[in-house]
Amino acid sequence: MLPVMRTFLIDTDVASDDAVALIMALRAPDVRVAAITTVAGNVDVHQAARNGLYTAELCGSDAPVYVGAEKPLLRKYQNATWFHGQDGLGDHGYAPKRRAPESLHAVEAIIQTIEANPGLVLVTLGPLTNVALALSKKPSIAAKVSRCVIMGGAPCCEGNVTPAAEYNIWVDPEAARIVVLSGLPVELIGWHLCRGEAVVNDRDIAQILALNNDIARFAIECNSHARAAYKMQTGEEGISLPDPVCMSLALNPGIGTNWSDHYLEIETQSELTRGMTVVDRLNVAAADRNQAAWQPALHKGHKAKICWTLDTTRWKQALIAALQSPGAVS
Amino acid sequence: MLPVMRTFLIDTDVASDDAVALIMALRAPDVRVAAITTVAGNVDVHQAARNGLYTAELCGSDAPVYVGAEKPLLRKYQNATWFHGQDGLGDHGYAPKRRAPESLHAVEAIIQTIEANPGLVLVTLGPLTNVALALSKKPSIAAKVSRCVIMGGAPCCEGNVTPAAEYNIWVDPEAARIVVLSGLPVELIGWHLCRGEAVVNDRDIAQILALNNDIARFAIECNSHARAAYKMQTGEEGISLPDPVCMSLALNPGIGTNWSDHYLEIETQSELTRGMTVVDRLNVAAADRNQAAWQPALHKGHKAKICWTLDTTRWKQALIAALQSPGAVS
Amino acid sequence: MLPVMRTFLIDTDVASDDAVALIMALRAPDVRVAAITTVAGNVDVHQAARNGLYTAELCGSDAPVYVGAEKPLLRKYQNATWFHGQDGLGDHGYAPKRRAPESLHAVEAIIQTIEANPGLVLVTLGPLTNVALALSKKPSIAAKVSRCVIMGGAPCCEGNVTPAAEYNIWVDPEAARIVVLSGLPVELIGWHLCRGEAVVNDRDIAQILALNNDIARFAIECNSHARAAYKMQTGEEGISLPDPVCMSLALNPGIGTNWSDHYLEIETQSELTRGMTVVDRLNVAAADRNQAAWQPALHKGHKAKICWTLDTTRWKQALIAALQSPGAVS
Amino acid sequence: MLPVMRTFLIDTDVASDDAVALIMALRAPDVRVAAITTVAGNVDVHQAARNGLYTAELCGSDAPVYVGAEKPLLRKYQNATWFHGQDGLGDHGYAPKRRAPESLHAVEAIIQTIEANPGLVLVTLGPLTNVALALSKKPSIAAKVSRCVIMGGAPCCEGNVTPAAEYNIWVDPEAARIVVLSGLPVELIGWHLCRGEAVVNDRDIAQILALNNDIARFAIECNSHARAAYKMQTGEEGISLPDPVCMSLALNPGIGTNWSDHYLEIETQSELTRGMTVVDRLNVAAADRNQAAWQPALHKGHKAKICWTLDTTRWKQALIAALQSPGAVS
Repeated sequence: MLPVMRTFLIDTDVASDDAVALIMALRAPDVRVAAITTVAGNVDVHQAARNGLYTAELCGSDAPVYVGAEKPLLRKYQNATWFHGQDGLGDHGYAPKRRAPESLHAVEAIIQTIEANPGLVLVTLGPLTNVALALSKKPSIAAKVSRCVIMGGAPCCEGNVTPAAEYNIWVDPEAARIVVLSGLPVELIGWHLCRGEAVVNDRDIAQILALNNDIARFAIECNSHARAAYKMQTGEEGISLPDPVCMSLALNPGIGTNWSDHYLEIETQSELTRGMTVVDRLNVAAADRNQAAWQPALHKGHKAKICWTLDTTRWKQALIAALQSPGAVS
Repeated sequence: MLPVMRTFLIDTDVASDDAVALIMALRAPDVRVAAITTVAGNVDVHQAARNGLYTAELCGSDAPVYVGAEKPLLRKYQNATWFHGQDGLGDHGYAPKRRAPESLHAVEAIIQTIEANPGLVLVTLGPLTNVALALSKKPSIAAKVSRCVIMGGAPCCEGNVTPAAEYNIWVDPEAARIVVLSGLPVELIGWHLCRGEAVVNDRDIAQILALNNDIARFAIECNSHARAAYKMQTGEEGISLPDPVCMSLALNPGIGTNWSDHYLEIETQSELTRGMTVVDRLNVAAADRNQAAWQPALHKGHKAKICWTLDTTRWKQALIAALQSPGAVS
Repeated sequence: MLPVMRTFLIDTDVASDDAVALIMALRAPDVRVAAITTVAGNVDVHQAARNGLYTAELCGSDAPVYVGAEKPLLRKYQNATWFHGQDGLGDHGYAPKRRAPESLHAVEAIIQTIEANPGLVLVTLGPLTNVALALSKKPSIAAKVSRCVIMGGAPCCEGNVTPAAEYNIWVDPEAARIVVLSGLPVELIGWHLCRGEAVVNDRDIAQILALNNDIARFAIECNSHARAAYKMQTGEEGISLPDPVCMSLALNPGIGTNWSDHYLEIETQSELTRGMTVVDRLNVAAADRNQAAWQPALHKGHKAKICWTLDTTRWKQALIAALQSPGAVS
Repeated sequence: MLPVMRTFLIDTDVASDDAVALIMALRAPDVRVAAITTVAGNVDVHQAARNGLYTAELCGSDAPVYVGAEKPLLRKYQNATWFHGQDGLGDHGYAPKRRAPESLHAVEAIIQTIEANPGLVLVTLGPLTNVALALSKKPSIAAKVSRCVIMGGAPCCEGNVTPAAEYNIWVDPEAARIVVLSGLPVELIGWHLCRGEAVVNDRDIAQILALNNDIARFAIECNSHARAAYKMQTGEEGISLPDPVCMSLALNPGIGTNWSDHYLEIETQSELTRGMTVVDRLNVAAADRNQAAWQPALHKGHKAKICWTLDTTRWKQALIAALQSPGAVS
């Protein structure tokens, strides 16, 4: 029996972990990636497009790649090449050989792809600038997406780029706020899920390299710079893979072991807590003392699905399965 | 000798004073209005488009009208029908007879019109949502506009909708900030310029009605609700016309009697001063104590042109000239 | 051998858990409570003083009780009688019989007590208004305190009164910020430490009541309202005792099993995250992107000690030991 | 007939213009200056006290001088020696000869002086730190002051130290907010009142020096540095005297030619507009759209008296009268 195909739209600032996430989606047997849209984030938007094309070519995919916003809505653009390397892929000289980005702007591509594929799954792996612009231009697309799975934020825990915030949300908090308050069915996959036991450790890396194919080698090699940077950032050894963790949950929500629905807001007023994903975990947003500040979220009335914990064994199984030799992918 | 034609693009939330401003541009002998783009503001964006079409038809113009953003980028949409009437034109039943809005979205229309008409004059009479979206999608258009004349703000004085802010900027302060920091050559025409001596008084109204033509009658009649609301708001008698004042300065900057160039910022962090147009009138933005807060404006390095005072006699002459019987327009 | 006596100054908004914390300090054999200063918080400042006097009388203590600030520095005063009952002690009619508050203002009492007892331990169980006022008037006292143990905040986790903040800090965030940036050697005992395994459960309660003395009975009974409120707030059964947990760590830091030193800031600019205790857990405050926002904390150069986890067995042992019959206290 | 004596309490960061204001009060025949309290502002608080003592000695006054807060409540202390000179008096070597400051803290002195002199006039010429601390400790004093005349702010106009704010309020905006919302009967004397025609020009200076006495000479000489700095700041020639203008209005409100009562708030949430005195000039604070932000001011229900314009002739007459030779003062 053939699987029921699902349609994914992936918006991404393609760097090393994004590339692995793209591989997972592009090689999933029951997923059609209708579009890859790129945004300024880890690397500039044109480099992101090149990285996306290279990854797609490696997977033998002809998913179209669109170039989007060059910078956040209001904030100064700040990349993360200190983490991923100058080209975002560890500076090993990867370059696409066959294809170039489409001429249509990513914002238009998002609108048209959603309208042409009602019910699609939107996965975001970078700052939310493109998605926010698409929603601002065409608010009605929010109701046509079945799931909006976001790698971003640090719900109820410390952030990575500031003490309060995770990079993707911090870089363009206004865009994130537009998305979160848009009515899209948000599932928030926070940075905490890729830490600790979820980090791809030496044994996992050996297992992946033993798969002995170009895709598996690329997945490890393009994260060389990120691996060293993560060690400096947290003191933890191994490769931390936020975007592939997110993609594994987009592909299979059951890998998450604890989900709950809450009002979600994004901090945009303070520099200290800029880009914080504030989750109403104890359900106090509607209390008298909180109603004014939470009115925009309460007004919309819908909650985001927050993933708190992960089955790290299954997550790593999903990762390794996606990196198997082409013939081996089932 | 034929006048050198100038090309105008007018972005507007068409209500009563906007309509008069449109008349001034559409009937200016040396101006071609390449596009009228509408935005949610005084009235909802579809009503604004209907009002724009009605006004264009009244002037015998076939300038295309495009529909744009339905709401501000991040904030709740708040209209000003309490000022202009439910339909924005004093509820006299005006409706376009011949034309409908174009199908192209206003954001695309702005991008395409600017790219097709480098050097055009952009005049904005409403919230800046459309222009901000166009700049976010295509930042390069900023360099192709010769002047960006904005009706908005209350530089170094009290606001009209809050103690600190004027309506157009207050409704979508994030959009205004994107525009102000975009590199567009902004000329700020604040709300203070349409008060006091600049208000169209009983004698002026009599003179306009004596022109005895449909356009002149419409200009007065569509402001019936606004006239009463202005009396309640400020205690001042007469018709206050912010958008026509702005248009008169777009058509003829010499009507402004005191202009100076300053760094300009928009307040987006505080509820109390939300949407304030903060003007560095004493040129202290680069002082040590101010550098951090003013870094985004300083970084760009360009200043806005602020109009402080007006030759009210010449402004009223310009208004009355524009409302003369068709044959009389020179 | 006699124990070396330590001097404590306890600033508190005496309600049910504060009362138990006071008991722990007043009955500690090696502690002299030099002053109890009260502040508006859980209950109004005069009720807090009455509750403090009642508790002291119950313990046979003549520690002086001083009345302090009636409201937060800038914010509207908001009590927590919904949690602790109208009188803060579950409305069982407790009232002091022998003593009245001192006439000296708590702010003066704090200054004089610290100056008379250099090296004392300052324990705060309520909003930090009094301590902030004392520091503002006499900044030099900060250097004369050996430890400032604060029950407050929700470091790197969800808050209790808002999604981002814990009550004591949220009520008067400006005061908390003054304290945190004052140079006082802060040890932050967050709300998370009194949850889960640390909650006094049915078996613990039975063990306490079996001590069969007035103090033990009071400790349970005065928390009757708080117990029900905690159930509603978190769904957890039992009595959650933030202030006694804090006092156990003030008496014996070894009960904390994981401490680390970090820059600490208090959010005062945003309504959404008002009163959040932002902890630089990954030590990124000095990174380029964070320097501006963290300058006040970095400038001072000293860090707060954050307690992340607790030995819940030892905490409960400490609690029960403090509630033993008078003769039994060793 | 003897004049009815009025009691003044003057809180000040004594620098050059403050000194002239002190002279005006100390020499007013119907005023008793019960206390001069000093605060960190233009110069550090101890220098301010020395300057206050010097000025009092020059006037033959034995008004007690108290030392207060060393820094703002929450913000970094930033002086204005770039305007007034290192010692605040133009660095001419002035020093008190006979007296030293009192030992009582200024905050206590404010409380005690108000309680001992109900109905007194409180005049503030510097940051409002001391007054805020006094109000925080003893809120009831607010009702015992007949007028609280504040030199501070830039109501509905540009500021001097930032584009939005005047120095006294900007330095300690939280203190200013505490004062403004305390219930004190505030009269706001903004920076705009000391500009333009109100500046003491060459002819005025000649007239003052022609009085040919030590006090008159001191009044001009101690402003030597401020005069040069004002030229650089605004381009205007002459000596701008904010504090003496304020004192002239405290002594004789009739010198103000346009006063009105409005809700007043102080901006404390945004860096861009920090310390702005937001005046509800058009009385829109209670409108639906403004109620949330203006709730603290509306809740209190009382308004501040704002002085918009000045009779500059009478202000200069008042100044010159105060500087006449001792025998000549009537």
